[in-house]
Amino acid sequence: MDHKALQLERIVFFSDAVFAIAITLLIIEIKVPHLDHEASDREFAIALVRLIPSFVGYFFSFLVIGAYWVGHHKIYGKIVDWNYGLVWRNVFFLMAIAFMPFTTAFFSEYVTQLVPIVLYASAFTLAGALEIVLFRYAIRNGLTDPNADPAELSHLTWRMSVLPLAGVVAILIGLIKPIFAGFAFMLIPIAHRIIGSKFKKAEKPATNTSELTEQN
Amino acid sequence: MDHKALQLERIVFFSDAVFAIAITLLIIEIKVPHLDHEASDREFAIALVRLIPSFVGYFFSFLVIGAYWVGHHKIYGKIVDWNYGLVWRNVFFLMAIAFMPFTTAFFSEYVTQLVPIVLYASAFTLAGALEIVLFRYAIRNGLTDPNADPAELSHLTWRMSVLPLAGVVAILIGLIKPIFAGFAFMLIPIAHRIIGSKFKKAEKPATNTSELTEQN
Amino acid sequence: MDHKALQLERIVFFSDAVFAIAITLLIIEIKVPHLDHEASDREFAIALVRLIPSFVGYFFSFLVIGAYWVGHHKIYGKIVDWNYGLVWRNVFFLMAIAFMPFTTAFFSEYVTQLVPIVLYASAFTLAGALEIVLFRYAIRNGLTDPNADPAELSHLTWRMSVLPLAGVVAILIGLIKPIFAGFAFMLIPIAHRIIGSKFKKAEKPATNTSELTEQN
Amino acid sequence: MDHKALQLERIVFFSDAVFAIAITLLIIEIKVPHLDHEASDREFAIALVRLIPSFVGYFFSFLVIGAYWVGHHKIYGKIVDWNYGLVWRNVFFLMAIAFMPFTTAFFSEYVTQLVPIVLYASAFTLAGALEIVLFRYAIRNGLTDPNADPAELSHLTWRMSVLPLAGVVAILIGLIKPIFAGFAFMLIPIAHRIIGSKFKKAEKPATNTSELTEQN
Repeated sequence: MDHKALQLERIVFFSDAVFAIAITLLIIEIKVPHLDHEASDREFAIALVRLIPSFVGYFFSFLVIGAYWVGHHKIYGKIVDWNYGLVWRNVFFLMAIAFMPFTTAFFSEYVTQLVPIVLYASAFTLAGALEIVLFRYAIRNGLTDPNADPAELSHLTWRMSVLPLAGVVAILIGLIKPIFAGFAFMLIPIAHRIIGSKFKKAEKPATNTSELTEQN
Repeated sequence: MDHKALQLERIVFFSDAVFAIAITLLIIEIKVPHLDHEASDREFAIALVRLIPSFVGYFFSFLVIGAYWVGHHKIYGKIVDWNYGLVWRNVFFLMAIAFMPFTTAFFSEYVTQLVPIVLYASAFTLAGALEIVLFRYAIRNGLTDPNADPAELSHLTWRMSVLPLAGVVAILIGLIKPIFAGFAFMLIPIAHRIIGSKFKKAEKPATNTSELTEQN
Repeated sequence: MDHKALQLERIVFFSDAVFAIAITLLIIEIKVPHLDHEASDREFAIALVRLIPSFVGYFFSFLVIGAYWVGHHKIYGKIVDWNYGLVWRNVFFLMAIAFMPFTTAFFSEYVTQLVPIVLYASAFTLAGALEIVLFRYAIRNGLTDPNADPAELSHLTWRMSVLPLAGVVAILIGLIKPIFAGFAFMLIPIAHRIIGSKFKKAEKPATNTSELTEQN
Repeated sequence: MDHKALQLERIVFFSDAVFAIAITLLIIEIKVPHLDHEASDREFAIALVRLIPSFVGYFFSFLVIGAYWVGHHKIYGKIVDWNYGLVWRNVFFLMAIAFMPFTTAFFSEYVTQLVPIVLYASAFTLAGALEIVLFRYAIRNGLTDPNADPAELSHLTWRMSVLPLAGVVAILIGLIKPIFAGFAFMLIPIAHRIIGSKFKKAEKPATNTSELTEQN
């Protein structure tokens, strides 16, 4: 019994390690600029400015992987049992997450280009879709806490659906005007706020403060 | 006593970390293509198509390391005690796992070539063999749960044996026609299905659903 | 309840993994020197001497990330509850930590240059500021142990404030004379000693030995 | 109290993560050989043979870091309490461990050269010395299990001392004939066997089997 719990913990900690590595590898893709050792401050400043797309990519993808980790944290906050069907769906989800350092580096290098942006948004969408598959599988197979409020599980699913939807919107915008694709992600906090307020009316207003801060 | 349990946990979590890093490093080996910043969408698409072998290698090796992790998870689901003989066998097994990002990158770069494919399949076979060594050692030295069903331990060993066997078949095919070596790995789910059904007849049909999903 | 504790543990272990990767990636940025295989011992020794700035960077940044990990360890030694506001502040703090392998590599490559040194000190300052934000958030939102001595929480905050302050001093020195910026960090143990002795007088002298060794 | 245990666990798991990353990064330093895609099997085989020093370096350093991890595992098997003095000594020890992927890559590239070999052996010696510092600190400060057999603690210290001593011998041999330095490490299992048998006579023969396998 205790052993069974340890095995669930392993799934979670293995996932955490993959998330942690994927999120930290983002920095590896930013290469130190090559300059003459005697270069002027101005030249160094220019070299740094040229790296801004990479820094933005780092910042943005750190948030993205962070958001998926938070989603994973929420899912496993409801899961109390496991089977190897869950394990494999978890592996596929992690496969999409671990792919992101590549799509980030590609898109940071060519920010105005269609192909890297669509690839980035596609990987993002895939990760979101696989996260929902994981969660629905857990619910359908009775792996979630039997005392969990069905409305809350439904709320979580809705929240999670926002991410791949935003990804699809980003792909569509990207196909028309690549440089604007990023704006699609601004829909995420807005949609989360709408879903949150909708569910707050329906449910008992239990964890008000955490709801508020969660929107961050 | 409690401390002893913590020390077993460390072996497991150290292994998880190595698995997680090896599986995530796979992406590091895929380099962002170098293109002119003003290149056309078509040129970008072609550059991406050229990376398909790398993506396939990533996908495939992620599944492979994932499968070995699942095997490790199953083994330690039965292990309740440890000694430093187990620890060292575990280290050797991890050495084969951590080698895979290299064989993956080598084989993804030269997909039609004999040497990289045979090297890949050899590392795969070695990992499988070392996993069995680890598990048999645990059983022979009384480190497994004394209440574990011997038929189940035997079932697990059979399942595990499929991986290095498929590796050997892949080496043999590779020596004749490198490009077809990959088909050997299709034997794995088939063999698992056969072994699974054979053992299901013998045992009491306890965990039906997990058996089914496990085959995924 | 137990599940809630596991979820707090996940936040901690995810952070530990990010810290561990960031601290270990420091070595990746030191490239093996390229020499003729028949080069003389003298040439090898010179190549090694040329790497000294990189080794110093490794040593120094290992201590820096180590110090931030110790700070994180101290913070979570007081935290007994969590919410997603804490999680997101933790993610932002980790974002500054995971950025350090880049600033370290950049500054180690051009030790006498203004821009890399100011960038390094800025990332250092940012990490320190975000750590304080994290801790103050936990205190204000009642996530810390209700039995924790307020004087001790205050002591911790003061200690933590020393790091970003030293970072600001380093930036200021760096703007005048880059090569001397590092001396700012010597203020840290001195300030910690002063704060420690000030608080030791106020509090009951409980954990004398750990206080002393802590200053190391 | 429970919280105090979690904080000790964090020190251990953070260390495990650093060990796991350092050990897995070893593979990153082995670069995929660049060949013509149409090169013959013979050319591929030759390219692989040229990598043998790197493979040997991988194998050897995996064992070395593995051995230090085992030592760390043994130390913390005795430690039941902690303070920040221990934490910092642990950080310094990890700094030496995380340095090894660099010394391994350097020495694998230039196997016959004096400087890389002496550097490798020096890092190895330093890690061993810092491990002993860590353990002695824990014993002197009462952080070890009060029920631990002093003879066993002494046995462990002796076993640990073998590693830095072998490192010193390797440096000395290396200064005379670099290529033979590796033989110094063969002293380790021999010395462990001698120490083991000496202590087995003194102690009660409690854990016979684990003693035997431990020598592996």
